[in-house]
This record gives sequence, structure tokens and C-alpha cells, in this order.
Amino acid sequence: MAKILIINGPNLNLLGTREPEIYGRVSMEDFLDALRQDYPAVTIEYFQSNHEGDIIDRLHENGFDPEINGIVLNAGAYSHTSLAIADAIRAIDRPVVEVHISNTAAREQVRHTSMLTGACRGIIAGFGLDSYRLAIEALL
Amino acid sequence: MAKILIINGPNLNLLGTREPEIYGRVSMEDFLDALRQDYPAVTIEYFQSNHEGDIIDRLHENGFDPEINGIVLNAGAYSHTSLAIADAIRAIDRPVVEVHISNTAAREQVRHTSMLTGACRGIIAGFGLDSYRLAIEALL
Amino acid sequence: MAKILIINGPNLNLLGTREPEIYGRVSMEDFLDALRQDYPAVTIEYFQSNHEGDIIDRLHENGFDPEINGIVLNAGAYSHTSLAIADAIRAIDRPVVEVHISNTAAREQVRHTSMLTGACRGIIAGFGLDSYRLAIEALL
Amino acid sequence: MAKILIINGPNLNLLGTREPEIYGRVSMEDFLDALRQDYPAVTIEYFQSNHEGDIIDRLHENGFDPEINGIVLNAGAYSHTSLAIADAIRAIDRPVVEVHISNTAAREQVRHTSMLTGACRGIIAGFGLDSYRLAIEALL
Amino acid sequence: MAKILIINGPNLNLLGTREPEIYGRVSMEDFLDALRQDYPAVTIEYFQSNHEGDIIDRLHENGFDPEINGIVLNAGAYSHTSLAIADAIRAIDRPVVEVHISNTAAREQVRHTSMLTGACRGIIAGFGLDSYRLAIEALL
Amino acid sequence: MAKILIINGPNLNLLGTREPEIYGRVSMEDFLDALRQDYPAVTIEYFQSNHEGDIIDRLHENGFDPEINGIVLNAGAYSHTSLAIADAIRAIDRPVVEVHISNTAAREQVRHTSMLTGACRGIIAGFGLDSYRLAIEALL
Amino acid sequence: MAKILIINGPNLNLLGTREPEIYGRVSMEDFLDALRQDYPAVTIEYFQSNHEGDIIDRLHENGFDPEINGIVLNAGAYSHTSLAIADAIRAIDRPVVEVHISNTAAREQVRHTSMLTGACRGIIAGFGLDSYRLAIEALL
Amino acid sequence: MAKILIINGPNLNLLGTREPEIYGRVSMEDFLDALRQDYPAVTIEYFQSNHEGDIIDRLHENGFDPEINGIVLNAGAYSHTSLAIADAIRAIDRPVVEVHISNTAAREQVRHTSMLTGACRGIIAGFGLDSYRLAIEALL
Amino acid sequence: MAKILIINGPNLNLLGTREPEIYGRVSMEDFLDALRQDYPAVTIEYFQSNHEGDIIDRLHENGFDPEINGIVLNAGAYSHTSLAIADAIRAIDRPVVEVHISNTAAREQVRHTSMLTGACRGIIAGFGLDSYRLAIEALL
Amino acid sequence: MAKILIINGPNLNLLGTREPEIYGRVSMEDFLDALRQDYPAVTIEYFQSNHEGDIIDRLHENGFDPEINGIVLNAGAYSHTSLAIADAIRAIDRPVVEVHISNTAAREQVRHTSMLTGACRGIIAGFGLDSYRLAIEALL
Amino acid sequence: MAKILIINGPNLNLLGTREPEIYGRVSMEDFLDALRQDYPAVTIEYFQSNHEGDIIDRLHENGFDPEINGIVLNAGAYSHTSLAIADAIRAIDRPVVEVHISNTAAREQVRHTSMLTGACRGIIAGFGLDSYRLAIEALL
Amino acid sequence: MAKILIINGPNLNLLGTREPEIYGRVSMEDFLDALRQDYPAVTIEYFQSNHEGDIIDRLHENGFDPEINGIVLNAGAYSHTSLAIADAIRAIDRPVVEVHISNTAAREQVRHTSMLTGACRGIIAGFGLDSYRLAIEALL
Repeated sequence: MAKILIINGPNLNLLGTREPEIYGRVSMEDFLDALRQDYPAVTIEYFQSNHEGDIIDRLHENGFDPEINGIVLNAGAYSHTSLAIADAIRAIDRPVVEVHISNTAAREQVRHTSMLTGACRGIIAGFGLDSYRLAIEALL
Repeated sequence: MAKILIINGPNLNLLGTREPEIYGRVSMEDFLDALRQDYPAVTIEYFQSNHEGDIIDRLHENGFDPEINGIVLNAGAYSHTSLAIADAIRAIDRPVVEVHISNTAAREQVRHTSMLTGACRGIIAGFGLDSYRLAIEALL
Repeated sequence: MAKILIINGPNLNLLGTREPEIYGRVSMEDFLDALRQDYPAVTIEYFQSNHEGDIIDRLHENGFDPEINGIVLNAGAYSHTSLAIADAIRAIDRPVVEVHISNTAAREQVRHTSMLTGACRGIIAGFGLDSYRLAIEALL
Repeated sequence: MAKILIINGPNLNLLGTREPEIYGRVSMEDFLDALRQDYPAVTIEYFQSNHEGDIIDRLHENGFDPEINGIVLNAGAYSHTSLAIADAIRAIDRPVVEVHISNTAAREQVRHTSMLTGACRGIIAGFGLDSYRLAIEALL
Repeated sequence: MAKILIINGPNLNLLGTREPEIYGRVSMEDFLDALRQDYPAVTIEYFQSNHEGDIIDRLHENGFDPEINGIVLNAGAYSHTSLAIADAIRAIDRPVVEVHISNTAAREQVRHTSMLTGACRGIIAGFGLDSYRLAIEALL
Repeated sequence: MAKILIINGPNLNLLGTREPEIYGRVSMEDFLDALRQDYPAVTIEYFQSNHEGDIIDRLHENGFDPEINGIVLNAGAYSHTSLAIADAIRAIDRPVVEVHISNTAAREQVRHTSMLTGACRGIIAGFGLDSYRLAIEALL
Repeated sequence: MAKILIINGPNLNLLGTREPEIYGRVSMEDFLDALRQDYPAVTIEYFQSNHEGDIIDRLHENGFDPEINGIVLNAGAYSHTSLAIADAIRAIDRPVVEVHISNTAAREQVRHTSMLTGACRGIIAGFGLDSYRLAIEALL
Repeated sequence: MAKILIINGPNLNLLGTREPEIYGRVSMEDFLDALRQDYPAVTIEYFQSNHEGDIIDRLHENGFDPEINGIVLNAGAYSHTSLAIADAIRAIDRPVVEVHISNTAAREQVRHTSMLTGACRGIIAGFGLDSYRLAIEALL
Repeated sequence: MAKILIINGPNLNLLGTREPEIYGRVSMEDFLDALRQDYPAVTIEYFQSNHEGDIIDRLHENGFDPEINGIVLNAGAYSHTSLAIADAIRAIDRPVVEVHISNTAAREQVRHTSMLTGACRGIIAGFGLDSYRLAIEALL
Repeated sequence: MAKILIINGPNLNLLGTREPEIYGRVSMEDFLDALRQDYPAVTIEYFQSNHEGDIIDRLHENGFDPEINGIVLNAGAYSHTSLAIADAIRAIDRPVVEVHISNTAAREQVRHTSMLTGACRGIIAGFGLDSYRLAIEALL
Repeated sequence: MAKILIINGPNLNLLGTREPEIYGRVSMEDFLDALRQDYPAVTIEYFQSNHEGDIIDRLHENGFDPEINGIVLNAGAYSHTSLAIADAIRAIDRPVVEVHISNTAAREQVRHTSMLTGACRGIIAGFGLDSYRLAIEALL
Repeated sequence: MAKILIINGPNLNLLGTREPEIYGRVSMEDFLDALRQDYPAVTIEYFQSNHEGDIIDRLHENGFDPEINGIVLNAGAYSHTSLAIADAIRAIDRPVVEVHISNTAAREQVRHTSMLTGACRGIIAGFGLDSYRLAIEALL
């Protein structure tokens, strides 16, 4: 049976509430429910933290786990500032797919480059919550 | 019945031959055959050109066609230099998804930013030829 | 009898349709009709292409023609990226006036500098389709 | 009755000890006592952390609380590096005022720009501990 | 009795008229009346000029006056371009507080850095006309 | 009857004398005479100053005058350094057209960008004194 | 028998006419005649286009041809802007030598770096039409 | 008896496993055992965290402890992004020596400058795990 | 009889008072007295203004005067920001020597380049008030 | 009889030994023997130094010698840092051809621009030791 | 018996005299005496020169000497400007350790990056003359 | 009796011959004769070298000599590239005046900033050979 870990970074706990014109009005919890229904054969683990260090800890914890097909990572703002998370991705051996809900290239300059992409398997951005769905497809 | 247009830019006619350690050994023709088999309900049109102007012409030609669900665009090197293609994407009304075979963020600096992404619906990069497949999923 | 060549670059074939809040709702064809009526003593030739190379070819073709008073060039997005068109303008001997429909300095950063202006006689930008009219005045 | 939350970022727990020629010799605790005496009608909550994630957590926790007039935030060094805190400020609905004890524009280059100011209601910097006092005035 | 000098720079004579969505609809004259009523014990002098040189002249004139508690300076656009005003602030001995009505960090890039802040005692920005009020508080 | 205000900035009082290989040998006075003869139905007011503040003052004075069709502004060197004039243009409601006698894009780097263009209706540059004439045409 | 392909880019069809103080007064046709006389044992093919896409097409067409010793490429202005041509050079297996007639490093800044050199075997620039001759020597 | 605190930053818990071609195959635990054997007269405390805030907390906790000779700090990726750790080093009074296992100047651009070095006593980089050993020598 | 005009820019009226550790304790008036005593055969005119426009006006007024040997210009902060004064220097025909009291290259970055030097005959900086004396020597 | 001077800069005395994967395994001495055999009618002088000053001295010494056809200069690393050698090339009257053994544009960023090229007649790079041979051809 | 070569670059012959607040008051000669006493089993050779070329010559001379354990190099100011010395280090086979007496990262910007570090084994900086001692430890 | 040392850097031995339109037609030897005649009471020593190291050596040799009033240094191209000479100037105690024959600010960009000025007493540039004369005046 397949297993996927989704890691969400800072402020993504507010999904559905936060700047809905950018991030939409669906909460992550509701989205996860729908996702699990659509992929009954996949165990989807979920972890969210506003702490850069927690994200690194979790990447280490699951990043060598042979049972996990891969990790879907939306590191939010840390995507653009965290070399430490990039190093963590390079240090582990499970594939990581970077996702973004919004089309970051259509927003402010600081969001146009991600420090993580080069360390990930690939990037999927701009499809709303479907970005996560496509990332799961990519990992399966 | 769904309809998708795939547009490939410069040097992608050499797929399978060109720098296989980056782009793989499968030709676009073989990949399209497989793709059409996997999506029998989708008409997949394909267009490739090494000419920036041809890509713009084709975007105009199909970009207002209500029968087309969307356009999958791998503009190759033009992604990083062509404001004119970005303008064409903004000018039409069908959604465009940017794809890249390789993880451009893991290559030379000049490939780290795309002039097109901000004009597209979203970007999918780094999954080899599966990037096209995921883009079709995103558009359907 | 005076003769003017108007050259339009990429995406300007969509005038009237494309982003009308920036470029207005009049098509180039209708505008040319009005223009020819207002200047009955001037032969106004018109050429549009989405191909950088076509624009260069046409500049070469008419750029040494002593019957032509001058060339009105709206190179669209190529204004900001094409050193080759700038070289073509420098290579010919007929005067070229750069025009823009919109006020490019009030738009995105990439449109704030034109590679062509230094090679042209002058620039007229921001007056909608009247920019062409003023350019014809300047050349007559 | 009014309620204000003061959040202090990294190294501000050392106030009074740390580089006193820049930050002065009064500890935050003593200053808070004085502040509460001066504003008996205001409940002043205080939170300090050296963890970027803790600051985000706390902004989330109180940032939708209608009983709070606003948040006074001195994010210290994170002001200059944390896009994640800026996103948190944009995500919540209570007004945030950025304060600095020192005149950061008179110090090293890296402290001349703050990633937070654009997301805050305003900024007050350079008045020593009185910066906090002025921020409270601004929020009341 | 306390005495404060408020200096306003270019275009601030149009307050109430100019871009009201940024600067509000209250004229400086009405605001000064209110201010003087709120601070009956303070003599509030006011000077406005669109001339960089006038601002420097006035800073010199009052900048050594021991009767003045300090100067509240909103140099408008000159904040971002005038090294000469910064030098004048450094040359005098009365404290100067920089104020801005709008949150300049939330506007165009050119307004994100001020050449004056490093020479002033501190900065207060983003609180509308209350920025002046807070600056007076800071100086008293 | 139409009314146009021409404002000339620093060093343009020396027209005809100053660097004639760039600016030509006709004085502004002689040019204005010719202009007024060519446009007998237009009242052409003229103002020149070497003072940035004077230009702002005059823009304010006439910038709300409903009798004026528009303002032709050649701010000379201030075009490249004055955010304050740009703010003045944005603050008034009469249209302003930026003109330059020389083709500034063909001169030194510092003259390639104007801080004013984005705030003006449009720009006309490089046609010698005819740049003013074209600007009047544009405003009529 | 040896075989060499010479590819000339934009505006080089005007050789002998265009800016002769930079490019000389000999046409490419006359030069090719002389070249073929000097190298009777070498088949020298010649291709010129103002279209970036044509140059890529031609590189693909001959770039895998084992009968060709190598390609001499003067891509003109595209040398400084075309990542797509650089990619084409990397994609083929015949050696390419970059040539320039003028000493591009002694001209404007934009001509000081070529996007092609790193993908070519080497570069020869500044020797007038002899640059081509030296490139042929290098390939033989 | 001497006492040294070694602080390791993000991803250094994976030493021996992570990118061994850069960081070697010895785990930190084994290295610490060897180190303690070599320096029997020195108490070597060890702390590792992936959290920027934890590193700051620990620097505060031990940074004023007169029993500690000094702190050896390998902040990993945070060396290149954390102004907050640099401020913590400046705030405490015990000397800190920055160490790196690899020669960071021989790696990617982002690792060529450290925000910490200027705040530390000195830097030792490139000697593998011996960098720690040399830092201890430096502090003793 | 020789005649020299000395023009001083902003804040130089405060000489002797302003930041004496940089500019010394002698007032310009006392220095001019000494200078006139040392050069009895030279008429030394003096002009100071804090207004950029005044300096331009004065350069125009005396800049074509054949009785003047040359102009000694210390434009203070305007040296680093005023293209308009540079244009004025280029527009007149009397030689101008740029002087600075302090060694501007040993101060803040913004003072390391002068917009005026390229337009002047030469520059003399760093010799205190003797810089003026040397400039007079240079012009005589 | 023709005469050529070859000047080699720093580290080129180690040719054949130094980084042979970049510079090859032939020593300069052996190469010079072969070269002299191939060009029996040319006197080939050779000079190598690791001293920037020596290279300048030698350029001066032979740079006005009418018996010398020209100078072949491989200044090694000094190509990228020495304005003084560029000045020497401009000061003499014999033509100088810049050569590089490796394709410097395909190496690190710092080697992508040469300070010398603009002062030389032309550049030949990337052909191994044949670069020297081609330079001799160019000078003859 | 071990053998170490210490190479000192420009101005280090003045050690003890030059800017003692940065470099201390001990001369290199006295320090070498102490060093040789502390390491009686190590032959410590010493070379100092103000000439970039001499340093390269010496690196070549000893850089292949199997009797030498390694080279300790303090290239002084050349560390920040000399690509030629970096190339020399890469060309030889004995390990080189870069040392600095002062903490260069705490000084002016130009000293924050060294062109040599990437070519050396490692770097030790900021420990005064003990930097040399630690480098010897590292090499032994 | 006063004593001055003049040090000339690279290519200045060619004075009178080299680029006379920039540097004039007088040789340094003739100029020194005239200078010594004009200053019979001053011993004027002269030193020229094309070697950066020689200039540093000579600065050291005379830089502590109490009999010398000061040093006049025209370091030519090294002014713009040599941190080592700047360090030498800072290391010695005799005052150094930087001179340039040409107005370096009116030449290429690379000559607009000098690495030496901040370390010198002052700078005199643009007065031809009289720059030396003024520097002697400044030192006496």
C-alpha cells in the first residue's frame, strides 16, 4: 500500500481563512478528507508547522523511511528563505515534490525564486489545492 | 470530448537524442503514442517549432478556440528569454500550463527564472516526460 | 507623394481583442482605414509579424528605399529583448520612429527600457493609437 | 477595557544586558512594569521568543481575537529576514505596529530594510523603549 | 512652554486633494487646527515648501534654537533622494523625527528606503496624520 | 480656445547656446514665436526654471485649471532624478506630456530612465524642438 | 574531402553595406568567392538568416552530419540574447566555432558577453573577415 | 578544568549519513568520543538542534557562564541566513569560534558568505571534523 | 587682474559649526578673508546657496563671463545627486574645478562618486580648506 | 623575415603539469619547438613571467619595435584582473592578439570577461595550444 | 622530520608596526622564533614578499616538493584580488592553508570574500598570530 | 629643506609617447626638470615602476622617513585594482596624495573609483602634469 507524507509550512494552518482571494476558502482539513476519499489505497500523513526546525526534524524522521513513496512539501514562505530545509531535502533519500497553491511567479518578486526547488525532484505550482493532488500523482 | 494542445519549443524535436542524461532517451513521437493510448478520450494535438514567432502564431490560432481545454507549453530556452510569448499567453483566453522535463532550478542560473510562469495558470517541472502527463491532468 | 511604412510586432495582430483595458478596443484594420482617410496624400504600407526575423527582413527590404519617408515601428515585446532588430535599424538608412500604444514606463519593470530607442530617431509612447499618428507627423 | 499584545523577537530577552550602548540598560521586565503603571486601563500582554515559529504561532493565536486592540511587534533580527512572519501579519486581522528600539537605518546595511513593514500598519523606530509607548498610543 | 516645528516637503500643500486614497481627505490646515487644540501647551510652528533648498534653510534657521523641543519632518519625495537634507539634519543640534503619512514600505520600491532616517532621531510612518501626533509625543 | 502650458526645466534657458550639437542652435524664444504663429488658436504659456521646487509650484498652480488642455513638460536633468516632480504630476489632474529634444536613450546611461514617464500621459523624445510640437498635437 | 558549414545570423546579409566602419566594405558573397579559391579542397557551404529559428533548424540539419568537419557560426546579435541557439549547439555533435568580425569587447556593454561561447569549441573575434578564415583553420 | 560547548546546527545530526562525499562517514557521536579521549582535561558539552531559536536559546544560556572557555559553533545552513544568531553571538560575552567541516568557499555561491563570522572571534573551515579540534585548540 | 568665483553648496554656510571633526572649526567668512589677503591680485567672488537651482542660475550667470578665470565649486551633497548641476557645468564655457573639504572617498559609500567630476576640469579633495586654495592655484 | 613575440602570464610555466584535464599534457617548450619547425620563416620569441609588472615591462620593450609583426599574449589569470596590462597594450603600437588555451567562457564566472580583449586586436580562445598557432596566422 | 613553508604577502613585513590595533605589536621575526621553539621537530621556512609574482614563483618552487607537509599562506590584500595566486594554488599539489591574523569578515566589505579560499584546503582567520599556529596543527 | 617623493605607477614611464591625446606630449623627465627648477628648495625624488610590489616596497622604504614631507602617488591603473597599495598607504605614517593626470571620472567606468583615495590624505586629478605640482603645494 502506498504512503505519502504531506508537509505544510508556515501560515498554511490558516488555509481557508487567510487571504482567501489568493489561497481559496477550503480548509486543509476538508481538503485532506476529500483527498483521502479519492485515494483510498494511499495512506496520506499530514504535518504542519510554523517552525523551520520542525519541518527539518520531520523531513529527517520520515526521509529515510522505505515505506514512504515520497514527500509533498509546501514550505510556504520558507521556500524563499530557508537554505536549511534545502539541505535537509538533499540529506534524505526519499523524493520530495515542492508544491505551491498560488502561482508564486505571478506574485511579489521575493516569491519568484525558491531555495528548495533545486533540491527537490520537481515543482508544481499555481493549481490551487490541486497542486497537492498532482504531486501525489507524480509520486505514485 | 476533451482536447489538449501540446506546444514544444526549440530543440525539443531532438528529444531522445539531445543530452539524454538531462532529457532522457524517449522520443516525443513515442511518448505521444503512449500518451494518446493512456488518454483515449482526449484529442491531443501536437506542435513543435524552433521559431519563437511560430509558437506565438499557434498560441493565437488555438488560444481562443472554445473546443480546447487548454494548452501544455514547454517553450524550452524561450521560457527564459521571450517576453513576446508571455504576452501571447496573456492575450489569449485558453489556460496555458508551463512544463519542463528537467528540474530547471537545478541547472544553470539562467534557467532559474522563467518569463512565462507569471502569465500561465501554473508550472510543472522536473518529472521528465511525466511533466506533460501531469499538465494534462491539471487541465482536465 | 509621401510614403510611410508601419511595422507592428508580436501580438499586435490581436489589437482590439487583446487586453483591451491596456490596448483599447479598436482593431488595427479599422485604425488603418481611418488613418488613410486622414492622410489621403500619404501611402501607408502596413506589415505585422510575430517573427523577430520577419521584422528584420522587412526593415532590410524597405530600409534603403528612397521613396519611403520613414518607418513607424511598434515592435511590441521585442522592443525590450531584441538587439537584432536594433542592429537592423542601425544598418538601414531610412529613419525609424519607435511607438508604443501604452505608456510602457507605467507598466512592469521589464518594459521600462527598450533596446531599440537608441537606434531610432525618436520615441512616442502612451497616446493609444494616436502614437502612430504622431509618429507619421514626425516623419512628414 | 483596552488590550494590547507586545511581541518581542530574538535576543530581546537580554534587554538591559545586551549591547547597552545600542539598546540601553533597562530590562524589559522593568519597562513593562512602568508601562502598565502608565496605562492602568490597558491590559498589556507580553510574549518573547527567540523562535521564528513561536512568533508566528502567537500572531495566529491572538491575531483574530476581537478583544485585542492590536499587536506591537519588535521582531528583532527576524524583521530583516523573515518572510514567514510577514505572511503571518498579512494573514491575521488585528493591526500590527512594527517597533524598533534603535534607529535601524543608522546601523549596518542589512538592518536598513525590514521585510515586515509593508505588512504592518506602520513603523516606529529609534526612540529607545519609548518606541513601544508610541506604538501603544498609535493603537489606542 | 514647549515648541515644535513641523516641516512638510513637496506636494504636501495639496493634502486633502492629492491622491486621497493614499493621503486622506483632511487638509493640513484643518489638521493643524485640531492639533493645536489638542496640545494647547505647545506652540506648533508650521512650514511647507516644495523647494529642497527652503527645507534646508529652515532646518538651519531653527535647528540651533534652544527654545524648540524638536522638529517633525515629512520631507515627502525628498526623503528618498536628498542627501543634502540629510546633511542639514546632521549639521544642526535639535532632534528631528521623520514622519510619513502613508506606510512607504507598502508602496513602490523607490519609497522603501529613506536617505534621512539614519540622520534623524527616529521614524514614524503609516499612521495617517496621526504620524505627526506621535512624533510630537516622541519629542515632548 | 485651447490653452497649453509648456514647462522647461534646468539649463533649457540656454537653448541655442548650450551644446548645440545635441540641442540645436535655435533659442526657445524664437521657437515659441514660430509655434504661436503655427497655432494661432492656441494660447501657449511658457515657464522655465532651474529650480525643482519652482517646477512643482507651477505644476500645482496650473494643474487643476480646467481651462488648460494639458502641460508639455521637458524637465531636463530633473527627469532622471526627481521623484518630487513625479509626485506633483500624479497629484494634479491636467494631463502632462513628457518631452525631450534629444534622444535620451542614445546618450549616457543615467538618461535612459526617466522617473517622470510613468506619471505622465506619454513621452515624446528625439525629434529636436519638434518634440514640443508633437506634444501639443497630442494634447489637442 | 573536407566540408565546412558557415552560418551567418541577423543583418550579416548586409555585409559591405551596413556600418562599414565596423564591418568593412566587402560583401559576404565576394568574401566567400575568395575563401573558396583559397581552400579548393574544402566544400564551404553557406547559410544566412535573420531568423533565430532558422539558425536552430540549420544547426539541427547539419549538426549530426558526419561529413561535415565543423560549423563556423557568426550569430550576430543573437550571440548575446539567444539561449535557444546555445542549446542547439549543445544538442548537436559537430564542433561549432563562434566568430565575430568586429572586436565585440571593444563595443557596447551588451556585446561583451556571448551566450554561445560556453557551448562552442572556441571563439575567434576581431580579425575582420579573417575571423572566418581562422575558424576554418581551427576546424581543419 | 577547561570547559567547551560545541553547538551544531541544522542537519548536522545526520553526520556520517548525509552527503558523505562532502561531510565524511564519521558520526558526530563517534567523533565526540574520540575528542573527549584526546582532551581528557576538557569537559566537552554538545548540543545539536535543527531550530534556529534553540541555538539562540543555548547561546544565551551558556554565553555568560564564566566556567566556559568558549563555544565552538557550526551553524550549518543558518550561517548563511541567520542575522538572529549573529546578534546572539554579539549579545553574549563568551568567545565563539565558527567552524565548518567542508570548505564552504569551494561550494555554491550562497555558502561563500557567512552572516556569523563578523560576530565570532574567528573562523576555521575546510578541515573535516578536525575543524572542531582546531577550534578547541584556539579556545584553550 | 584675475577673477575667481567660489560657489559653495548646501550646508556649507554652517562651516565652522557643522560636524567640526569633519569640516574643521574655521568659518567660510574667516577663510575668505585670509584667502583674499594671500591673493591680493585676485578678485575672489563668493556665493553660497542651499538651493540646487540657485547654483545652476549662478553658474549660468558667470559661466560665460570672459573676465572670470574659472569657478571653484564645492557643491556639497549635490555633488552626489545633481545631474542638473553637471549639465550646467557642461553648458557653460568657463572652467570649473570641483573641490571637497573632506576626503569624500573615506566617508560613506554615497559620497564615493560625484556626478559632477566628469563635467569639471578636475577635482581636488581632502585638504580641508586648502582644497579651495589649490583650486585657485589650478585655475590661475 | 617575420618576427612574433609570445608572452605567457602566470602559471603557464607549469603547462603540461598543471591541471592537464584543462590545459593538456604538452609543455610550452615542446610546443614552441613544434611551432618553430612549422614556421621556419618566423622568428618566434618567447617570454613567460608570473609577474604582472614583467609582462608590462616586456610589452613596453617590444611594443614599439617595428621588426615585430605582433604579440601573442596569454595573460592567464591577469586577463581577468589587470587594467594595467590593458593600459600597456593601449600604450604600445604593435598589434596584440589575446589567446587562451581553454574555452574560458565554459569555466567559472570570473573568467567570462577579460579586461584585455577591448585593448587587443582580437581574441582566440578554446583551441588548446592551437590557439597560439591561429594567433600567429592572424598576425602574419 | 616535518617541514612547513609559511608565505606572507604584502605589508606583512611591517607586522608589529602596521596598524597595531588590528595586527598586534609582535613582529613576524619574534613570532617565528617562538614558533620554532614550540615546534622543534618541524622545519619552518619563511618567505615574505610584496610582489604577487614572487608569491606565485615561490608556490611553484615548493609546491611539488614532497618533503613539505604543506604551505601556510597569508596573502594579505592579494587574498581579495588575485586570481593568479588562486590558480597557482590549484596548479601545485602540496596542500595550502589560508590564514588571516584579523577577522577579515569584521572589517571592510572588500575583505569579506577571498579569491583563494576555494583553492585552499581550508581557512583559519581571526586568531591573531595564533592563526598560523593552528594552520601548522592542521597540516601536521 | 623640504623633501618630496613622487611615485609613478604602470605605463607612466611612457609619458609623452602613450596616448598623447589623454596624457599630453611632455615626458616625465622633462617635467621633473621643470619642477625642480620651480622648487629649488625642495628635494624631489622620483620613482617609477610597472610592478605593484615595487610600489609597495618603495612606500615602505620611505613611508616612515621623517625627512620626507610626503609622497605624491600616481598609481595609474593600480589605483583602481590594488588593495595591497591601499594597505601600504595605511601602514606607513608619511602623508600620501593621490594624483591623476587625466580626469579619470570623465573616462571609462572602471576608472571612476579608486581603491586608494580613502587611504590617502586627498586626491588631485584632471590638471595634466600640474596635478603633481598642486600635490607638492598641498604637501608643503
